[in-house]
Amino acid sequence: MLAIQFFFVILISMSITFSDIEQARKRIAPVVYRTPVLQSINERDKGEATFFFKCENLQRSGAFKLRGAYNKIAALPEAVRQKGVVAFSSGNHARAVATAARLLGTHAKIVMPNDAPEVKLQATRAVGAEIVLYDRYRESREAIAQSICETERRTLVPPFDDPLIIAGQGTIGLELHEQMPEFDLLVAPIGGGGLISGVATALAELRPEVQIFGAEAEAANDTFLSLQKGERVQIPVPKTIADGMQVTSPGKLTFPIIQQRVKEIILVSEHEIVEGMRFVAEHIRQIIEPTPAVAVAAARKLATRFPGARIAVILSGGNVDMKRYRELLTGKGM
Amino acid sequence: MLAIQFFFVILISMSITFSDIEQARKRIAPVVYRTPVLQSINERDKGEATFFFKCENLQRSGAFKLRGAYNKIAALPEAVRQKGVVAFSSGNHARAVATAARLLGTHAKIVMPNDAPEVKLQATRAVGAEIVLYDRYRESREAIAQSICETERRTLVPPFDDPLIIAGQGTIGLELHEQMPEFDLLVAPIGGGGLISGVATALAELRPEVQIFGAEAEAANDTFLSLQKGERVQIPVPKTIADGMQVTSPGKLTFPIIQQRVKEIILVSEHEIVEGMRFVAEHIRQIIEPTPAVAVAAARKLATRFPGARIAVILSGGNVDMKRYRELLTGKGM
Repeated sequence: MLAIQFFFVILISMSITFSDIEQARKRIAPVVYRTPVLQSINERDKGEATFFFKCENLQRSGAFKLRGAYNKIAALPEAVRQKGVVAFSSGNHARAVATAARLLGTHAKIVMPNDAPEVKLQATRAVGAEIVLYDRYRESREAIAQSICETERRTLVPPFDDPLIIAGQGTIGLELHEQMPEFDLLVAPIGGGGLISGVATALAELRPEVQIFGAEAEAANDTFLSLQKGERVQIPVPKTIADGMQVTSPGKLTFPIIQQRVKEIILVSEHEIVEGMRFVAEHIRQIIEPTPAVAVAAARKLATRFPGARIAVILSGGNVDMKRYRELLTGKGM
Repeated sequence: MLAIQFFFVILISMSITFSDIEQARKRIAPVVYRTPVLQSINERDKGEATFFFKCENLQRSGAFKLRGAYNKIAALPEAVRQKGVVAFSSGNHARAVATAARLLGTHAKIVMPNDAPEVKLQATRAVGAEIVLYDRYRESREAIAQSICETERRTLVPPFDDPLIIAGQGTIGLELHEQMPEFDLLVAPIGGGGLISGVATALAELRPEVQIFGAEAEAANDTFLSLQKGERVQIPVPKTIADGMQVTSPGKLTFPIIQQRVKEIILVSEHEIVEGMRFVAEHIRQIIEPTPAVAVAAARKLATRFPGARIAVILSGGNVDMKRYRELLTGKGM
């Protein structure tokens, strides 16, 4: 009997439903921005694909990550929340957890790699979080975070592999449905897969006709390889300018959703990532970080495969410092 | 009798009413973007001013100018419109007139200074306009444009001093009213004054409590000096990085509106303009050209004078090429 109960608990915690995303939206609505969808300022030639950019680089905290983090922390019972939270992250999730913790009146400790961009470290400290640095190539951030949780009875806020995190990111799908006329394709960058699995779940309900594409840097092709093999593959920590993709494997929860709902993964080169950042500057005057530029580069490839298509692209974040941004665009930072 | 009739025609053509702006909106609605109002992605300290940025850098053609240009050309009788239009402009108005002409199925000739940013020349040609270059420091663009109009029976689309142009720009005021919660101050950059006089006319009707501030570069202080003296003052062609402010005098129509509705002109240095561009990159991830950064710099000064104020800032355009943008932010382009 206990075994059956346990089995059901597992089942429930594994599946993300449309209703989870609707609940997430109610939870996050008071603080999270409804980011705009932008179209090019330039005139389009006949027959060219049309791009629609969902600008999560304009999200509070500078990335979509606030949606999931706030949803997770807001859902904790008050007494649990008051003991504080812990997160490990390459940057945007860290800042999001720190921001959500502050907005919800609690405290965050963040385990961050010692080579994270300075702008992300600063921004995380600026919202009152405490940072614990570690060596990305030698230490396990999961182990460090776990130990802090046990010692201080804090709650871990995982970067992607959690139903409440995925549901939070999925709220982007609800907004897209309201903001967009008909569209044919959606492209999202894949780190751990929280963003794309949440959005795909929302769109499966609201826009089942839309084909979902994932985008990965060639060096960070863990999800691409996993789909090929039909099971989660582990790769070494990828070296790519897309620092949000320094994930070695898709998540336990996100991978089956990706298997079910994502049509194909498009791989792009480091050079194409930089070209994607430049394209966004020229067409919609946005500053984005390298990770969403992976999706932009993928969308441009899809535009040649599907002439005239209406393509929604999720610009996941904009947290790049201006010095680094300038270097990347001049080709010095690669 | 004829004299009286003439007097009335002058009176009517001089005054811009709220209803002109409402009509403009109907005319431009099918093509002009409703640009978003953005707030900072960063958390704000208690008591700090809040900025709201109206992002006309995301307007079709890259600047607010499309509103006025399209309104003017769309209002022409079909037979007149078909003969084509002419404009003289330092850049954004040129591109706007070219774009509006194309969208309305007619043809534009643009008289542009030979030192206009390359990105603006290219962008104007790309939408099918013919460019006539002139020397900004020695020739009269008005005379050149006038001569083309007479020879080819084309219609002149003035950059600011025209009721239909002012009414078009004023549509930003209608959108601000719909998009904004209560706000206290509005800051707009002043070139010839078309933008601020249109928006001030709209807000006088919809939000009479809002105080309107103009922003000029120290070197381009023609409106500041004119207000001091109580009449339109002519200055030499100003040398400033804010190329949209290379105007030597406020307009005949715009100046009385500015006298009546603008509380004060804030002057800012070239260095503060660059700091304004950087501020916008850090807080709302937008790429803007130098001219709107004059308004950003002015708004930051107002923020210290009015702690806790809610300040709307019009980001008038984003047409700066990326090489120039990088140079400006590294201090090389000043």
